[in-house]
Amino acid sequence: MQSYKIALLAGDGIGPEVMKQAVKVLKAVEARNPDVNFELNPALFGAVAYFETGKSFPQETKDICDQADAILKGTIGLNHEDSQKIPVDEQPERGALLPLRRRYNTYANFRPVYLPKELSHFSPLKAEIIGDGIDIMIIRELVGGLYFGHKETGVDEQGRRFVREVLEYDEDQIRNILKVGFETAQKRKKVLHNIHKSNVLKSSVLWNTIVDELAPSYPDVEVKHILVDAAATLLCLNPGQFDVMVMENMFGDILSDQGGGILGSLGLMPSACVGPEKSYYEPSHGSAPDIAGKNIANPYSMIGSVALMLEMSFGMESESKHLWNAMKSVFAQGYGTPDLAKGDDAKLIDTDKFGDLVVAEL
Amino acid sequence: MQSYKIALLAGDGIGPEVMKQAVKVLKAVEARNPDVNFELNPALFGAVAYFETGKSFPQETKDICDQADAILKGTIGLNHEDSQKIPVDEQPERGALLPLRRRYNTYANFRPVYLPKELSHFSPLKAEIIGDGIDIMIIRELVGGLYFGHKETGVDEQGRRFVREVLEYDEDQIRNILKVGFETAQKRKKVLHNIHKSNVLKSSVLWNTIVDELAPSYPDVEVKHILVDAAATLLCLNPGQFDVMVMENMFGDILSDQGGGILGSLGLMPSACVGPEKSYYEPSHGSAPDIAGKNIANPYSMIGSVALMLEMSFGMESESKHLWNAMKSVFAQGYGTPDLAKGDDAKLIDTDKFGDLVVAEL
Ligand SMILES: CC(C)[C@H](C(=O)O)[C@@H](O)C(=O)O
Ligand SMILES: CC(C)[C@H](C(=O)O)[C@@H](O)C(=O)O
Repeated sequence: MQSYKIALLAGDGIGPEVMKQAVKVLKAVEARNPDVNFELNPALFGAVAYFETGKSFPQETKDICDQADAILKGTIGLNHEDSQKIPVDEQPERGALLPLRRRYNTYANFRPVYLPKELSHFSPLKAEIIGDGIDIMIIRELVGGLYFGHKETGVDEQGRRFVREVLEYDEDQIRNILKVGFETAQKRKKVLHNIHKSNVLKSSVLWNTIVDELAPSYPDVEVKHILVDAAATLLCLNPGQFDVMVMENMFGDILSDQGGGILGSLGLMPSACVGPEKSYYEPSHGSAPDIAGKNIANPYSMIGSVALMLEMSFGMESESKHLWNAMKSVFAQGYGTPDLAKGDDAKLIDTDKFGDLVVAEL
Repeated sequence: MQSYKIALLAGDGIGPEVMKQAVKVLKAVEARNPDVNFELNPALFGAVAYFETGKSFPQETKDICDQADAILKGTIGLNHEDSQKIPVDEQPERGALLPLRRRYNTYANFRPVYLPKELSHFSPLKAEIIGDGIDIMIIRELVGGLYFGHKETGVDEQGRRFVREVLEYDEDQIRNILKVGFETAQKRKKVLHNIHKSNVLKSSVLWNTIVDELAPSYPDVEVKHILVDAAATLLCLNPGQFDVMVMENMFGDILSDQGGGILGSLGLMPSACVGPEKSYYEPSHGSAPDIAGKNIANPYSMIGSVALMLEMSFGMESESKHLWNAMKSVFAQGYGTPDLAKGDDAKLIDTDKFGDLVVAEL
């Protein structure tokens, strides 16, 4: 009997409703595998935790996460106005999400930007731009850069308010994420797009130096250097040229969301946040407060994050594949959640129904 | 007789060949306006200047720019490999472009992301996404943030190389660019999209505070707050929702190039870099070393930058409109440069020919 402890951090907004689908799916996977047991441990996280306990990442949640084999996170955050009701440093992003990333040093964020040809109608891009589908793995450094550098606010000698915040990296941080990039490229098409801004940022100069130092150890991988701004252009014009893209934290934040844009919805963006000992899994999208509680959110990103967890934390590769196929098959039957369903012939389904159909496919 | 001194900084790569078209156009405008005289003063700038004088922004060029009423810049920069042959601080971006921006404090960068419905076939986006065309004005802060903050490289106590670079803004810098945003919104659809990342960056927190402070002075403008990552998604999914977008330097670099992506080419992105006393004008694209000298670059961004200069530096609004219409008309006749022409029915033209046709239209 193999038993896995999973911390469930449903979070805010649509978090709980998409998490419900993840739980359904986990139970279905368990049912298919009599020798596997998932111990599911829900815990408070995000704004909901702040309002209940005064902390958006309470100690009890930390304990549950510490004891877990993997962490499954929903979504956190409030809308712009409601956010202001929480002190800046307890707002769920600064008070919960970033501390979660730091606690487990989940430096390697895998964000697959994936759309098989059959689903290319979901994309806002023309069919001839998409060609055989989109299949990019964005690898984003997740615990460094501007996100975690020292921040200083104050008033200068002229009486002006100012802010200074530091983008910082050391060579170990850079090397660790680049290795993940190279190794992922080796497993895929052996081309690594290195995204940088070395014509302005000194951090990119060091980054590119480490790329050059590592490259000889991966002679089978071709490195292509591309400026972050050019990458933003080309992701729209010709996404097919990219396979594995590696980049620092903030660039990864922006380009991966652009990735969601070219897929047709952030609802199609699961992700894995991998640390040396523990990993957590989350949809790349936000908590979408405007549609929360309406049962219309697309749970694909959440369920896809379960698939990534099965593969990467539990080594259950074939179960992971089953799950991807089940989701693809639901879409292939013409079903779509409201973020995706366009045109008359779309069979509109809600959050729960999507979860049910995936479970039925399994 | 009205006389204007224009510094011409052709630069590297395709710079000289697109600048040639700008000069043709300026002569044609001059011919149409007997009371206007353009004094054109070419000067060395970029890698070409470095190799000739040892400086990428030589003193002589500074003098010519200082004396000019406006500066017209081509493109600068070499490919990734050739760049390495120049010491980091003399590379044309750090050694010429950023000093140019700083010298004239060109804090307000206008980047129109514009595609009339008739030209929407150039875009990689589906017709139903584009609707009535794309018409966004990106306003980017151009002399602050990470671009100009203090940078430190070194080796830490553990012997690791590190870099720290500072993203810094003071309230005056933020207020100045936001005012440009509000005023531009007032002249257009009275909606201002404020792009920020306040859930992570303290600079965005200050930025948004200033937005809130300024907003009451512009009661006719509706402010919409949007996270930079969400903006990257939505620029692909639904660009029609944006009219004026205002943002800090690095975000503007990335999102405006994404803007070029949704238009179908950076060749469709002219820009104005406006300072309190002097402004300069430049295409948003790079020097494209791979196609330099081949006479196939699209000079639209360069000629569009001339149109912006006529309007914004010389108050020649009707001449500026003529010029935009002339360019539109060339495209409307089915002509296209190689970056744009797609499909069999495209009448492919080269750089020179595009310039000639625009002049003929005038
Ligand atoms: C919520 C926010 C702090 C987070 C980030 O910026 O990393 C999110 O946008 C993401 O991409 O996971
Ligand atoms: C060449 C480079 C320094 C520049 C920038 O990053 O500002 C360019 O990308 C731009 O957008 O004008």
